Amino acid sequence: MTGILYGVGVGPGDPELMTLKAHRVISGAKVIAYPAPDSGESFARSIAAEAIASDAIEIPMIVPMRVERFPAQDVYAASAEVIAKHLSAGENVVVLCEGDPFFYGSFMYLFARLADIFPTEIIPGVSSLGACSAALRRPLTARNDVLTVIPGPLPDEDMRAKIESAEAIAIMKVGRHLPRIRALLDEMGMTENAGYIERASLGEQTVLPLADAPESAPYFSMILIYKGDDPWLTL
Amino acid sequence: MTGILYGVGVGPGDPELMTLKAHRVISGAKVIAYPAPDSGESFARSIAAEAIASDAIEIPMIVPMRVERFPAQDVYAASAEVIAKHLSAGENVVVLCEGDPFFYGSFMYLFARLADIFPTEIIPGVSSLGACSAALRRPLTARNDVLTVIPGPLPDEDMRAKIESAEAIAIMKVGRHLPRIRALLDEMGMTENAGYIERASLGEQTVLPLADAPESAPYFSMILIYKGDDPWLTL
Repeated sequence: MTGILYGVGVGPGDPELMTLKAHRVISGAKVIAYPAPDSGESFARSIAAEAIASDAIEIPMIVPMRVERFPAQDVYAASAEVIAKHLSAGENVVVLCEGDPFFYGSFMYLFARLADIFPTEIIPGVSSLGACSAALRRPLTARNDVLTVIPGPLPDEDMRAKIESAEAIAIMKVGRHLPRIRALLDEMGMTENAGYIERASLGEQTVLPLADAPESAPYFSMILIYKGDDPWLTL
Repeated sequence: MTGILYGVGVGPGDPELMTLKAHRVISGAKVIAYPAPDSGESFARSIAAEAIASDAIEIPMIVPMRVERFPAQDVYAASAEVIAKHLSAGENVVVLCEGDPFFYGSFMYLFARLADIFPTEIIPGVSSLGACSAALRRPLTARNDVLTVIPGPLPDEDMRAKIESAEAIAIMKVGRHLPRIRALLDEMGMTENAGYIERASLGEQTVLPLADAPESAPYFSMILIYKGDDPWLTL
């Protein structure tokens, strides 16, 4: 009997936004893996910390946190090997994922290597989309809106076309692209419908009209734009 | 002191996909409101049922479940009045929302009427996007994909343009539009990359390649399309 591989979404940051299922599976885990930066704390682990057993075996997957860099496949290949050993020995392995495992998540690199070999279960989590719209206090989408989710690195021309053709827009992973994106939205006359959110659901959460956003943004920041005509959707 | 209005996402269907926070707030609630059909059970209430105190006051907001029909604003106006009375009397009111309150949620109609008057907190939930991609066992989005979420009722011409310009596509609220959408995707050569999901995360969940989907679909069904080129992302 091999163990089960769990890809567990731990939500956007507030530990109370973990699901009951995530909490149960993490609490019972004897082997836990998570992405971690080369220096400092793992964000995914910090969200789940209270639930992790003190004698759990921990496997940090250390991926250098260079913005824009393609995740180091070597790290995931090596981690998959370590995880496979535990699974082969009959131990379940819980992989902690920020937000939702399959929404821009690096868990896919483990899933690609292991899900054909070992029983694998995905536990969805609250994504940053939900946390950011809650923080902004404005619906993300209503009725028959089209929502487009755009990664911050997308070039201006493409980004402009996507923004023009949707009612609701979320720009993710804003980070160092903030000045460029802000200039584009200004030019498009969209600034007054745009909200800026940093570290949604955490104690140090920041929510601002885009016009008041800081010059530099962390990787975990988002811009939400709503082009619908409901008066209560205006910031 | 007035009470607090809570818009609480209860997730996609599996009660264990409620967040710890949702569970805590629902368990402690003395007044609970939720959308309900004119006959049969409220889906949102059924998800949270185990957490609801037996002596809680319940306010079903009965909205006729006609597909496509604009939600009856009269119902929300009347419900908002009832809820306002409890809030004015100092009682918190918890409104149960399927999935996430601000992701195509009818909670916005209460929020619009009450959030300027009473302290209001939104508790985000796991959306059907996360539940459906987990059920399909395929990432919803990877790396720098653009994701577009399209409501099923969107006309063919618009839908075609949206599908052409994104890497990842989720078509929500498929329901009676399934035959039309399937014909469009066939014509676009997209059928083999499309998955069909019904009642994600529930016991009676159905997951099929789109080609094998049934003729008629329930309202809570979704089609996920992935146009990326990673081999493990092909169904």
